[in-house]
Amino acid sequence: MRATFLYGAGDVRVEQTAEPVIQQPTDAIVRTVRACVCGSDLHPYHSMPASDRGQSMGHELIGVVEETGSAVTSVTKGDFVIAPFAFSDNTCPICRDGFQTACPHGGFYATPQTNGLQAELSRIPLADGSLVVVPDVDPATADESLLASLLTLSDVYLTGYHAAHMGRVEPGKSVTVIGDGAVGLSAVLAAKQLGAERIVLMGRHAARTDLGRELGATDVVAERGEEGVARVLDLTGGEGTHVVLEAVGHMPAYEQAYGVVRSGGVISRVGVPQYEDAPVGFGSLFGRNVTLNGGPAPVRAYLEDAIRQVLDGTIEPGRVFDRTLSLDDAAEGYRAMDAREALKVMLRP
Amino acid sequence: MRATFLYGAGDVRVEQTAEPVIQQPTDAIVRTVRACVCGSDLHPYHSMPASDRGQSMGHELIGVVEETGSAVTSVTKGDFVIAPFAFSDNTCPICRDGFQTACPHGGFYATPQTNGLQAELSRIPLADGSLVVVPDVDPATADESLLASLLTLSDVYLTGYHAAHMGRVEPGKSVTVIGDGAVGLSAVLAAKQLGAERIVLMGRHAARTDLGRELGATDVVAERGEEGVARVLDLTGGEGTHVVLEAVGHMPAYEQAYGVVRSGGVISRVGVPQYEDAPVGFGSLFGRNVTLNGGPAPVRAYLEDAIRQVLDGTIEPGRVFDRTLSLDDAAEGYRAMDAREALKVMLRP
Repeated sequence: MRATFLYGAGDVRVEQTAEPVIQQPTDAIVRTVRACVCGSDLHPYHSMPASDRGQSMGHELIGVVEETGSAVTSVTKGDFVIAPFAFSDNTCPICRDGFQTACPHGGFYATPQTNGLQAELSRIPLADGSLVVVPDVDPATADESLLASLLTLSDVYLTGYHAAHMGRVEPGKSVTVIGDGAVGLSAVLAAKQLGAERIVLMGRHAARTDLGRELGATDVVAERGEEGVARVLDLTGGEGTHVVLEAVGHMPAYEQAYGVVRSGGVISRVGVPQYEDAPVGFGSLFGRNVTLNGGPAPVRAYLEDAIRQVLDGTIEPGRVFDRTLSLDDAAEGYRAMDAREALKVMLRP
Repeated sequence: MRATFLYGAGDVRVEQTAEPVIQQPTDAIVRTVRACVCGSDLHPYHSMPASDRGQSMGHELIGVVEETGSAVTSVTKGDFVIAPFAFSDNTCPICRDGFQTACPHGGFYATPQTNGLQAELSRIPLADGSLVVVPDVDPATADESLLASLLTLSDVYLTGYHAAHMGRVEPGKSVTVIGDGAVGLSAVLAAKQLGAERIVLMGRHAARTDLGRELGATDVVAERGEEGVARVLDLTGGEGTHVVLEAVGHMPAYEQAYGVVRSGGVISRVGVPQYEDAPVGFGSLFGRNVTLNGGPAPVRAYLEDAIRQVLDGTIEPGRVFDRTLSLDDAAEGYRAMDAREALKVMLRP
């Protein structure tokens, strides 16, 4: 089968590789219907040292179950499924708390545990906990737009949703979203769904912030840093917003976040932090009782509700996809996203 | 009148000074019934450079209203009142959110704004927002234990309560309290009040942790650092506790906090951070979706309910006081607390 590998910064190759096989009775093999490239895939695309051995890539997938291990009971051959970007047993105390990305028995794709999902076939560990069936949809005949929206439930939309959920967005709350990438725009849509009264989107790419307005942003702030902070404070009577959804992960975005958050408010992060230490003392968070939270989205916790919302047309998160390529052209997908020519690239095997 | 001043590290003096006067129509003058020494007073007691000019001290007070400005309507001469450790208008949007310590019109005692409260008389700015009447109690005849419990509502108990409130302690939750000082013990009592199922108290002073057990701690861990973390994980099936209440403020306590918190849990800080930057990235908070919050307690938000609980005997937070001195002996009070001979010292004018 064909699968995507990274051999070093900027060096993406789609190659023939052995098909995955059932290794544990709890595994399933899934044939890809659609996969895609994530903003987080661009981190190694920038930084990976050249290597003779390719790094398997990808963690977003909708597909059809091809085979199941003997212990799998909740999915069966032929089911159309969504795979959350992390696998988990979905039964342990941490999963029952709704934090499946921290499942002590779970893990991530494109690691020594299992292959990356930008491939024709994938081995899904803990299939009962890690695959959710999409009812009454035949992927062979479904609209491209429906497939796109379902694919976002593997990661990007529900990562934005996780930010809004952890930020306790609710009717009457004001929200700043930092970042106009696909996760930031997903956070706008999720904040709108949860009833936010005002949604300030901080971003500089007009095509993206225009889509942000369509998804629910009431204000757009193109300025960054101190100027951007001043602009948001200006828009909010000097108080800032109750909630800040940080969808970037770099330190300047963090600094913007505590600059625009209202006293007693919440900074919810879903951009993977590219730092370990950050200001949290009296001058940043503590003095004004600001809450900091967020983390890798436990997509699995939100999936059934979100599938229903997509199927009944309440949300159309697939609008963040603006390009579809063949899996064979994955390298071009990475390049286009990295060059910001594409917002998010879908891959068709 | 007599008031307490700090002239440098270890140099506390009680001196005659001018009586405060009404400066704004929203001011009140309050005659002290009881004041006390706070753990946070020990920071300048350790570090203040010697000075010719004394620094006014203290921020905890119960007293009787002596005089009110012309705009004050909610308290009147003769009322027995509690003063939260920060003053606030209690009407602005931030106060209405319940974060009165961040009131843009408020402030703190023992600052250029107004005198410290370890004094015979004090000027209370924004009296309508900053004083709460204790109904049906005559301080001249009240039990010492009742006065002690009411005095804790000025700061220490409600600071512990704020930690538990921000940590979202509720029935079924497990809690670790870091620190066996008066705030830590107050946090134990508050966690118990809010229904915590299990309360692990981390502290090394047997007399204090014994009191902690009486107030609600189910387990005591005397070990610190990695050893202490391992012990708490051991007690909790390797998972840590849902909530950590950090009542110290030094970096080792912060590191302990993220070591013992359960994935998806909350670290709520009320120990004033003696650091600005701290680990918050993938390896500490983000990777396991840990929430970090807390800050200066908005005591005012919790005061009416807590007064009722003290008056009806539901809680007896005054048990953290283990010594009463004359205001004249404030220096001895600081010394005894600093030497850990006393847990918390009450001052009688």
